[in-house]
Amino acid sequence: MASEGLDKSEETDHMIEKDAAKDRGSGLGDTKEIRAVFLSGFGGLNKLRVARKAMPEPLEGELKIRVKACGLNFIDLMVRQGNIDNPPKTPLVPGFECSGIVEGLGDGAKGFEIGDRVMAFVNYSAWGEVVCTPVEFVYPMPDDMGFAEAAAFPMNFVTAYMMLFEVANLRQGMSVLVHSAGGGVGQAVAQLCSTIPDVTVFGTASSFKHEAIKDTITHFIDRNADYVQDVKRISPEGVDIVLDCLCGENTGKGLGLLKPLGTYILYGSSNMVTGETKSFFSFAKSWWQVEKVNPIKLYEENKVIAGFSLLNLLFKQNRGDKVKAVMDKLISLFNQKKIKPLVDSLWALEEVKEAMQRIHDRGNIGKLILDVEKTPTPLMASDSTETSEAGEEEEDHEGDNGNKERMPFIQ
Amino acid sequence: MASEGLDKSEETDHMIEKDAAKDRGSGLGDTKEIRAVFLSGFGGLNKLRVARKAMPEPLEGELKIRVKACGLNFIDLMVRQGNIDNPPKTPLVPGFECSGIVEGLGDGAKGFEIGDRVMAFVNYSAWGEVVCTPVEFVYPMPDDMGFAEAAAFPMNFVTAYMMLFEVANLRQGMSVLVHSAGGGVGQAVAQLCSTIPDVTVFGTASSFKHEAIKDTITHFIDRNADYVQDVKRISPEGVDIVLDCLCGENTGKGLGLLKPLGTYILYGSSNMVTGETKSFFSFAKSWWQVEKVNPIKLYEENKVIAGFSLLNLLFKQNRGDKVKAVMDKLISLFNQKKIKPLVDSLWALEEVKEAMQRIHDRGNIGKLILDVEKTPTPLMASDSTETSEAGEEEEDHEGDNGNKERMPFIQ
Repeated sequence: MASEGLDKSEETDHMIEKDAAKDRGSGLGDTKEIRAVFLSGFGGLNKLRVARKAMPEPLEGELKIRVKACGLNFIDLMVRQGNIDNPPKTPLVPGFECSGIVEGLGDGAKGFEIGDRVMAFVNYSAWGEVVCTPVEFVYPMPDDMGFAEAAAFPMNFVTAYMMLFEVANLRQGMSVLVHSAGGGVGQAVAQLCSTIPDVTVFGTASSFKHEAIKDTITHFIDRNADYVQDVKRISPEGVDIVLDCLCGENTGKGLGLLKPLGTYILYGSSNMVTGETKSFFSFAKSWWQVEKVNPIKLYEENKVIAGFSLLNLLFKQNRGDKVKAVMDKLISLFNQKKIKPLVDSLWALEEVKEAMQRIHDRGNIGKLILDVEKTPTPLMASDSTETSEAGEEEEDHEGDNGNKERMPFIQ
Repeated sequence: MASEGLDKSEETDHMIEKDAAKDRGSGLGDTKEIRAVFLSGFGGLNKLRVARKAMPEPLEGELKIRVKACGLNFIDLMVRQGNIDNPPKTPLVPGFECSGIVEGLGDGAKGFEIGDRVMAFVNYSAWGEVVCTPVEFVYPMPDDMGFAEAAAFPMNFVTAYMMLFEVANLRQGMSVLVHSAGGGVGQAVAQLCSTIPDVTVFGTASSFKHEAIKDTITHFIDRNADYVQDVKRISPEGVDIVLDCLCGENTGKGLGLLKPLGTYILYGSSNMVTGETKSFFSFAKSWWQVEKVNPIKLYEENKVIAGFSLLNLLFKQNRGDKVKAVMDKLISLFNQKKIKPLVDSLWALEEVKEAMQRIHDRGNIGKLILDVEKTPTPLMASDSTETSEAGEEEEDHEGDNGNKERMPFIQ
């Protein structure tokens, strides 16, 4: 990874906010420093702020990218809470994916030129004006793809593709249950399912999203309903593939919904993020509370259970080559107009708290994007989305609470 | 299933043996009765004997088959011990597959004619001179296939094919670890792997088998060695697919050997059959003793665990249509001479005890076949394979004991 000094981490909040304000709207203001979102420690939204850091420079085999847009994923909320295995040290700059323009090449970095439009995975630090990342995690952007779309593409579509076609074996006539069908991964799954004939997609989603995503989902399951009963009412023998980002008690439910030879894939654990702060549900706790699976039961029932973590695959297990091969296929599908990232909304770096609150409340339909060049929307005195309170350490509401209706929606 | 009276179950051993002897060598001796292998109760080899039973007649949708040869599988030893979930009532006729000639059609049974050479799955009762089974479990024999080969084909090749291509997703360049590589499933796995370019097969097998199966196995692992260490010495990052019929402590070992995105499949539990009788290791015990798997660990490591039971798929889960599609592909591969069942030895029905002892001791290379028309080999006074002692209820040796060298090998 690039060496990135976190110069401002010791400063007071007041000074940091002032520094950030100075550069606002000018990505190229100070060539030695850049703006980035910082996480000062694990916890609530108040741990996030925009500050300046030293310009990163590419190490051997890395590309330096002038960032245009960054993807915001559910895993970023878990990182904020420290709710992951072996969390890194804070302060840190969050973010795992971005799009932008190649601005420099480290020694031995081949295959790209300065000025190329690219999308990339980054092992943290994506949420800044400039990032450096190994060339193996960088992919050329199709001509018809915008920067916001490109920042919405890698994580969600690679995750969806690898689950459906590498871990499971999606084929004609099969059925798939996906939770959070209106989210980034959910929409990628639904679109990829539509590339195979006769695939039935069951999707859980809040009812206000149904109209917006109705073209990609065969059967809606309301997210507050008992989805096991709802699926069985439509398909008594269950489904072929269950994609679960809920974890906990849902593993048993998901396995129970599988047809023989069916595959259950756990790819996230958004149920772990129930409150706003770390204390509510820790990673270690969920490890012990999750239902264990008896292999003999799988044998008797002819079932498959799998886990999928794209970040571990990329950054711990060194499978950049496999992911690159998948990206090639996905870019081809995009060029054939068979898939297209669904962007929910664009947010300035300074609006990261509101964006996180929106994904937490599941107000989004498609992907949330941090637009590095965007100017924050001015807050009104009467605007209930002002985040100074949400940033406090109190435990907040669980699940849907109508808050989404009051969130700023910036397209 | 056909209604099959077990007329002789109340008779004394002496009478049964006499009845059986009367028909020996004459499959068509008494048209109202047939010879079959009976299991009088769960336990040791002494629970098996040949006796007569009423001629079965086909129910609606069934075919009546004059049996030529039957497959003997490891699961038959577990049935003998009652070491399966929900064991059926005894007395019963064991056996799940056979080959033969169609001799009658029940109402509505279409697609076959009297005189057709066929292979078939049967839900018990395969080890007799005539069986009836639903037409969906019957497949035409290729012209170039003999009856012994046909009886060796369905269970092993369908199991191997579905594990490699339906549960896992075997592709060019992958690696597979298979236990008992010299057994029926092991050889089917190895042959099917050779139909895909650049597949590396690691196979555990007793050293005396290595020469006989060396064409199909890339790397031999001695079955008494630490296979985890041996595999890692050759491939430090592990393998893509582990096929495990050992169960128990081996699930953790198998998962540990997987590369990221790799698949572990439990398809049997031959370690459960450690002794000769039921008491040694019960199904319920193994259920609790087997290592449970935490889905979050699968998530972190990007791994897949699956169970595969062909018998449950066919007879409990009603997936005859899927199996038929697989059999079509396998018959095509056989006709292209890409696969060919490896038959270890042929045994008369009366020799079923010796055959079971041979598979228990892992003396076989390939499949053991009961040849319905075969006359038993006369036993010599000095022949140590005489089974009256092995049939006693004492606990016998575990694992390899050299007994295999003394087993009759009849080809």
